[in-house]
Amino acid sequence: MEKIEKNSSGSQILKGYLMATLFYEPSTRTRLSFESAMKRLGGEVLTTENAREFSSAAKGETLEDTIRTVEGYADIIVMRHCESGAARRAATTAGVPIINAGDGPGQHPTQALLDVYTIERAIGKLDGIKVGLVGDLANGRTVRSLAYLLAKYQDVKIYFVSPDVVKMKDDIKEYLTSEGVEWEESADLMDVAYKCDIVYQTRIQRERFGERNDLYEEARGKYIVDQDVLRIAVDVDADPRAAYFRQAKNGLYIRMALLKLLLVGR
Amino acid sequence: MEKIEKNSSGSQILKGYLMATLFYEPSTRTRLSFESAMKRLGGEVLTTENAREFSSAAKGETLEDTIRTVEGYADIIVMRHCESGAARRAATTAGVPIINAGDGPGQHPTQALLDVYTIERAIGKLDGIKVGLVGDLANGRTVRSLAYLLAKYQDVKIYFVSPDVVKMKDDIKEYLTSEGVEWEESADLMDVAYKCDIVYQTRIQRERFGERNDLYEEARGKYIVDQDVLRIAVDVDADPRAAYFRQAKNGLYIRMALLKLLLVGR
Amino acid sequence: MEKIEKNSSGSQILKGYLMATLFYEPSTRTRLSFESAMKRLGGEVLTTENAREFSSAAKGETLEDTIRTVEGYADIIVMRHCESGAARRAATTAGVPIINAGDGPGQHPTQALLDVYTIERAIGKLDGIKVGLVGDLANGRTVRSLAYLLAKYQDVKIYFVSPDVVKMKDDIKEYLTSEGVEWEESADLMDVAYKCDIVYQTRIQRERFGERNDLYEEARGKYIVDQDVLRIAVDVDADPRAAYFRQAKNGLYIRMALLKLLLVGR
Repeated sequence: MEKIEKNSSGSQILKGYLMATLFYEPSTRTRLSFESAMKRLGGEVLTTENAREFSSAAKGETLEDTIRTVEGYADIIVMRHCESGAARRAATTAGVPIINAGDGPGQHPTQALLDVYTIERAIGKLDGIKVGLVGDLANGRTVRSLAYLLAKYQDVKIYFVSPDVVKMKDDIKEYLTSEGVEWEESADLMDVAYKCDIVYQTRIQRERFGERNDLYEEARGKYIVDQDVLRIAVDVDADPRAAYFRQAKNGLYIRMALLKLLLVGR
Repeated sequence: MEKIEKNSSGSQILKGYLMATLFYEPSTRTRLSFESAMKRLGGEVLTTENAREFSSAAKGETLEDTIRTVEGYADIIVMRHCESGAARRAATTAGVPIINAGDGPGQHPTQALLDVYTIERAIGKLDGIKVGLVGDLANGRTVRSLAYLLAKYQDVKIYFVSPDVVKMKDDIKEYLTSEGVEWEESADLMDVAYKCDIVYQTRIQRERFGERNDLYEEARGKYIVDQDVLRIAVDVDADPRAAYFRQAKNGLYIRMALLKLLLVGR
Repeated sequence: MEKIEKNSSGSQILKGYLMATLFYEPSTRTRLSFESAMKRLGGEVLTTENAREFSSAAKGETLEDTIRTVEGYADIIVMRHCESGAARRAATTAGVPIINAGDGPGQHPTQALLDVYTIERAIGKLDGIKVGLVGDLANGRTVRSLAYLLAKYQDVKIYFVSPDVVKMKDDIKEYLTSEGVEWEESADLMDVAYKCDIVYQTRIQRERFGERNDLYEEARGKYIVDQDVLRIAVDVDADPRAAYFRQAKNGLYIRMALLKLLLVGR
């Protein structure tokens, strides 16, 4: 996919295919990533930044109704929704593939795919790695999807590091246990950072702490990756944001691969 | 068009053509249908969900000015506007074809085309059919366009069924009479349903009744198609919404055909 | 470019290339012009009408961050921003070409390119012409870019005509002087119109005059091009708006040429 993207004459692998982006909440970054992926492969796009309009109270249309209409217009639907489980409901209804591009506090699987791809490129392996997942683990759907996806690999160990109010929820922890994945919880990054091959951090949002601004300030200080933590940093260079943008590019490749897989197979 | 749409390699019939969607009020459903139609035929699309911005008071630009600008960028313009007659004004100005995708309480001709196509596929004919048009006939532009289009066929009979406050307007009734089409008005669906080959129902909106909520409630009950009415239902199966989604798909085919006809001929 | 645009089978010059329109403030007209230009040359487009969302306070993302993300998805970025200098900042960061489609009160260079092209087609030359720039010269970015671009030609003379409150700013006047371009300031259009080959007028906006409505009314009357002024009009026919729409079309050709130049060279 990297080679295709760099080839200026463009690919025709998905020529004749139409992808609809059905975004119930705006996410220009994710939408552009999917649309670029589709167009880099020669496919076409129908854009809906405004999907909320479908379900206006006046029209009283369900998500299922919308999906059945939109699947009449496109060969695949990329959906961002504010409710956990919305993508699953859509997939149950649809005759075309549905890609979950984030469903509220639920999952964000293509983000996890690109995270796993980025980790593999940085470390050279996925089996046997030790991963610290740090920050707001209760509300971060990307970190939830990442934990879920890491369970597909062998001998992975996960350290959950977060303040009490935003701990990883039980559904994911139970899933890991059922899959035989070792995990531990900790409240202090310094205690576990030295054991990890990778530290993955999600932003802590003030609004999750309600009135307890003191707890927020404490959490913020405690869960920030700084130079003391960074002995493990394999993917941080002079400009620490470089990995971030490399990651965005990896997201493009992952989504190209996923679209190809779902529309025309391997 | 159905065959073209199902052929995954895509058509090139409208390759090199550019369609602009100029929507002064949002309608994701109609916009996607037109954009999918254009892309299924190999054409390209310029999207404007925000056309209202053109005519901002500050800029003082008329609809005619906007049309003359946009026709410089595209080969055909699909326009949704909130004022009756807007599409006709645009067509008078433009050197490129204008498709009316709904002009306020005026007309919605492509919707009528797909309704007629759906009826023909359901019943097998259009000449000689008896059609009940039910609900808010004063404000429903689709039902106005449908009555207008049905007049093109032989020996059609139309039954208008609506509460007094939202009766079909005189312009359409006069047109039907001038074309020799028989029509009748009735306030009770049960009186005419058994005479009809097809009952076409539009939603009754509370806001049309102002303060008279009692009239609204009465109307609502009286004009709903239920099992008692449904002896005529040729196109309703286990899931009555099936016809609705089939209709959406028919809309795609009709719009593909219309775009082809207007841009490259038969 | 005119020939390519009129050729219905379309060009493939930019096939495989992807342009992102990154608009931090809406401008349907400019966006459509660029998108049409790209598609007329066979290129593809990612649309962002909503770029402001990138830099939401919650996300705390800088313009530079956004550019580094979007350049991962596209081969060229067309940017409209509300702050003067934003396009230059983006260009410094980006590895792909950035086209400034208007940066607040700064510049609007592609508009100036089309103005210069329109003038040349109307008069047959650019070297040695005398141009009156009239109206709000302080806030009109198009007139600022036009003055800047005219300095690239030989023996151009510029007459700035505006009310005191909205005079051309010093940066442009100093640039002209440094380039050896003659310029004069005047407060009365009638004094200079007869000396000009071309009079270029920008709209005067009431809000620039604050409470001084009397000054606004005076300015408005004084800087309007009417029949008395129009002895110089080479490009005004029965319908004076004709030149305006011709200009929009010229903008399309200029942008096609610019995209081709930046992406595949001459």
